[in-house]
Amino acid sequence: MMRIVLLGTGNVATRLGLALKAKNSEIVQVFGRTETKASHLAGLLGVPFTTTKLQLSRDADVYILAVTDDAITNMAANLFPIGDRLIVHTAGSTPMDVLAPFSANYGVLYPLQTLSLQKEVDFSKVPLCIEANSHANLQKLSSLAQTISDQVVMVDSDQRSQLHLAAVFVCNFVNHFYAIGEELVQEHHLDFGLLKPLILETATKAMQFSPHTVQTGPAVRGNLTIMENHLKMLEQHPEWQKIYELMSRDISKKTLRPGD
Amino acid sequence: MMRIVLLGTGNVATRLGLALKAKNSEIVQVFGRTETKASHLAGLLGVPFTTTKLQLSRDADVYILAVTDDAITNMAANLFPIGDRLIVHTAGSTPMDVLAPFSANYGVLYPLQTLSLQKEVDFSKVPLCIEANSHANLQKLSSLAQTISDQVVMVDSDQRSQLHLAAVFVCNFVNHFYAIGEELVQEHHLDFGLLKPLILETATKAMQFSPHTVQTGPAVRGNLTIMENHLKMLEQHPEWQKIYELMSRDISKKTLRPGD
Repeated sequence: MMRIVLLGTGNVATRLGLALKAKNSEIVQVFGRTETKASHLAGLLGVPFTTTKLQLSRDADVYILAVTDDAITNMAANLFPIGDRLIVHTAGSTPMDVLAPFSANYGVLYPLQTLSLQKEVDFSKVPLCIEANSHANLQKLSSLAQTISDQVVMVDSDQRSQLHLAAVFVCNFVNHFYAIGEELVQEHHLDFGLLKPLILETATKAMQFSPHTVQTGPAVRGNLTIMENHLKMLEQHPEWQKIYELMSRDISKKTLRPGD
Repeated sequence: MMRIVLLGTGNVATRLGLALKAKNSEIVQVFGRTETKASHLAGLLGVPFTTTKLQLSRDADVYILAVTDDAITNMAANLFPIGDRLIVHTAGSTPMDVLAPFSANYGVLYPLQTLSLQKEVDFSKVPLCIEANSHANLQKLSSLAQTISDQVVMVDSDQRSQLHLAAVFVCNFVNHFYAIGEELVQEHHLDFGLLKPLILETATKAMQFSPHTVQTGPAVRGNLTIMENHLKMLEQHPEWQKIYELMSRDISKKTLRPGD
């Protein structure tokens, strides 16, 4: 079994740590920059923690840098007098090679999922995208990943970055539309709950069908009267008007494209 | 039990017809403008159909105009020598009063759901928004609606129109982001299936949390490096670049607003 040091205390560190713990992985230490957060996560995982690099455990097999893209190299640079242990980061848009200066053994373990402190997630269904600088390291990482997920895929840094871009559209931007929807109904004293079956059905449909083949609504029907009316209703929200126009134009363009 | 004539042969007419049939409602006739479609739906429902107004059944209790917004008045105008029978339409963005010229009894039965010919839907969970021009008609419509749905709500024309606008964001626009996501991963020879757990989790999260409280991603974190990189990756898709910029700006603005 691999001995793991988990660096980071945010959404990814927490969810990944709990998934590893649930599969009896041996997490030997949590490292965090702030004591409150580090001790909280260490408490959840039932392991020791540290906030100073001098106390960082040096004999683990793998060091998981579960921090945001822009914190990876800083943290790696500050923390590693650990020889050539395996270091991996968990970020979507950072190339694997940023870890090259810090160890001869490095890789990436990117969970393609939206992770929050507030919400549990079934990690066995989270696609884990792995990449490593050698076949041996890829094997190690793959074994570790397979203990927590049924869907482990090998993905290079360019592909991972493209997956992250796609994820921004299908998750972050989608969630922002949910937020806009909530605001629009609440402005008229309606319950956001009314939209929930629609939100779930739209997502469920995408499990079964290629999304552009099941597009519905005024834009795909070319219903100009409704679209003009909607733009009028958005007068108090000029940014949403612009978004509405761009989205509608793009939807109607796609349906005119031959072969779709 | 109410005797129903179903006018229309599209997604809404089909799904609503099947839901009514499943609850043993008495659909006496299907009316459609094209024979193939009308006969197909009538076949599914096991009822007669017609394509000419002369053969329209005149003694039903309720006439359901399950056609798109822009077809409602045309169809109502052409078809009604039916006295003061109850006429309802099923559209989101058309005021109830457009039916006033055609009968003394009218209303709206709007299913707030994305309906497709290809996909079955559990109608008991579809919110049905009803409105009628009198208390008696509202009662009738409510009884009918409750036979097929557990969530029947009274909503006036302005509210319904706002619900429809919100539905365009949380369903039609969301689905277009799924389509963009699919195209982005396929361009890099990756499987759309990798995004599916993320799509489902994002929707599931909205069942439990107010969406803006669980927003994740580069825009809410203010990660400019990633956002600039994503914009570069979208160079072949200038419209998606514009959409990416507007969405990111709107997401980061919301998080700066006090009280959110």
